[in-house]
Amino acid sequence: MGTVHVVGLGPGPDRWLTPEASEALAEVDHVVGYAPYVARVPQREGLTRHSSGNSVELDRGRLALDLAREGGDVALVSGGDAGVFGMATALFESREAAVAEDPGYAEVPVQVVPGVTAAHAASALVGAVLGGDHALVNLSDNLKPWEVLADRLTALATRDVTLALYNPRSRSRPDTLGAARDLLVEAVGPERVVVVARHVGRDEESSVVTTLGELDVETVDMGCLVVIGASSTRVTDDGWVWTPRSVG
Amino acid sequence: MGTVHVVGLGPGPDRWLTPEASEALAEVDHVVGYAPYVARVPQREGLTRHSSGNSVELDRGRLALDLAREGGDVALVSGGDAGVFGMATALFESREAAVAEDPGYAEVPVQVVPGVTAAHAASALVGAVLGGDHALVNLSDNLKPWEVLADRLTALATRDVTLALYNPRSRSRPDTLGAARDLLVEAVGPERVVVVARHVGRDEESSVVTTLGELDVETVDMGCLVVIGASSTRVTDDGWVWTPRSVG
Repeated sequence: MGTVHVVGLGPGPDRWLTPEASEALAEVDHVVGYAPYVARVPQREGLTRHSSGNSVELDRGRLALDLAREGGDVALVSGGDAGVFGMATALFESREAAVAEDPGYAEVPVQVVPGVTAAHAASALVGAVLGGDHALVNLSDNLKPWEVLADRLTALATRDVTLALYNPRSRSRPDTLGAARDLLVEAVGPERVVVVARHVGRDEESSVVTTLGELDVETVDMGCLVVIGASSTRVTDDGWVWTPRSVG
Repeated sequence: MGTVHVVGLGPGPDRWLTPEASEALAEVDHVVGYAPYVARVPQREGLTRHSSGNSVELDRGRLALDLAREGGDVALVSGGDAGVFGMATALFESREAAVAEDPGYAEVPVQVVPGVTAAHAASALVGAVLGGDHALVNLSDNLKPWEVLADRLTALATRDVTLALYNPRSRSRPDTLGAARDLLVEAVGPERVVVVARHVGRDEESSVVTTLGELDVETVDMGCLVVIGASSTRVTDDGWVWTPRSVG
């Protein structure tokens, strides 16, 4: 039986791909994942690449398990860290359903390979905005009611926990980020430092430093990560953004 | 003038050291950091290693800036991701003080190199316990009043945000983790899944899966990372720990 390696590719460039991840990708028989991530794994002899569309995470997990049961080693790939809103949790969800149908699925060896997550790459790009206590929050409300998300965001921001917002805005959810901004302005005022980091690690990477009150949500899409600073987050004269370690 | 590269070494083994970090370490003239991290950078011709004790972060930052002003390229190293309770924020804090004394310090080029942080390596070790919204919290209260920490922990746990606790327990702070456990039991009950991951990525790595009510703080030290699961966090029959993506 093969092994399913759940592999985080890092936020973009190969310079953030760990040696462990590189090694797994060099040895597996199959790569399974969302097409843009699969495309980052070079074709080579003996490798079969299985690309799928977005939002079919559970199908991908099942495919990876099936390929491993058939004897192949599989890399199930995500961008960033596979454990942060990536394929690791989706694999365990697939596995739970598969094992309920056929206990043989429980025999498939699984290994999760950690990676650099987008929030930490974005923080490094601008300095150290996540240098204090911080939370990584998936702004997609496909899997989470808005009321839960709104309550979390308010609770975190009012406790001065810096927020890194993943999947901040998509065509199918154009309004969540604006609603989040509005409730946070209500909760902590308009002055918090906000960083919009786009395509971190790629040639076209960029970052915009603004404030909660001035955040233009129209400029944000799924290629972005949005950080809402703590009250202590500061911006230097030359544009570095950092959050002090000490509080109070 | 040289550059200060703030470099995260990952949580332990070289298999989690990114190519960007390796390259920086191979090219610099100086490595500056807490002794155990400096020791992870092999000695070579042309490299001067500057080891210091714990809790002198600001002195290390200043030394890195001074060495760069003298013309050397410097790697200021941390374990894990340098931006997560590591040297990145400390460097900007040093830099702020240095620039106030002498504006010439503002001319020193700085680059922050992201890394794999301990929480995400620990999550991968046990499965995907940080697969939902989660917070990275420094349990050290050296720089943060207990009241602030207690309020944060309660707000996070009651909103079902998974918690990764860094620096959970030291000889100088033996009681904080027990106090945190007690207030969380009060807030969310004793049943939350808890993972104590020790020396993640090293030969002697281990993990213990328990519950909040049964967490024995005496088993925890600075080599550990402690994860407090969400209400939905589950443990499979064969010991994987994961948090579903969906809520409610």
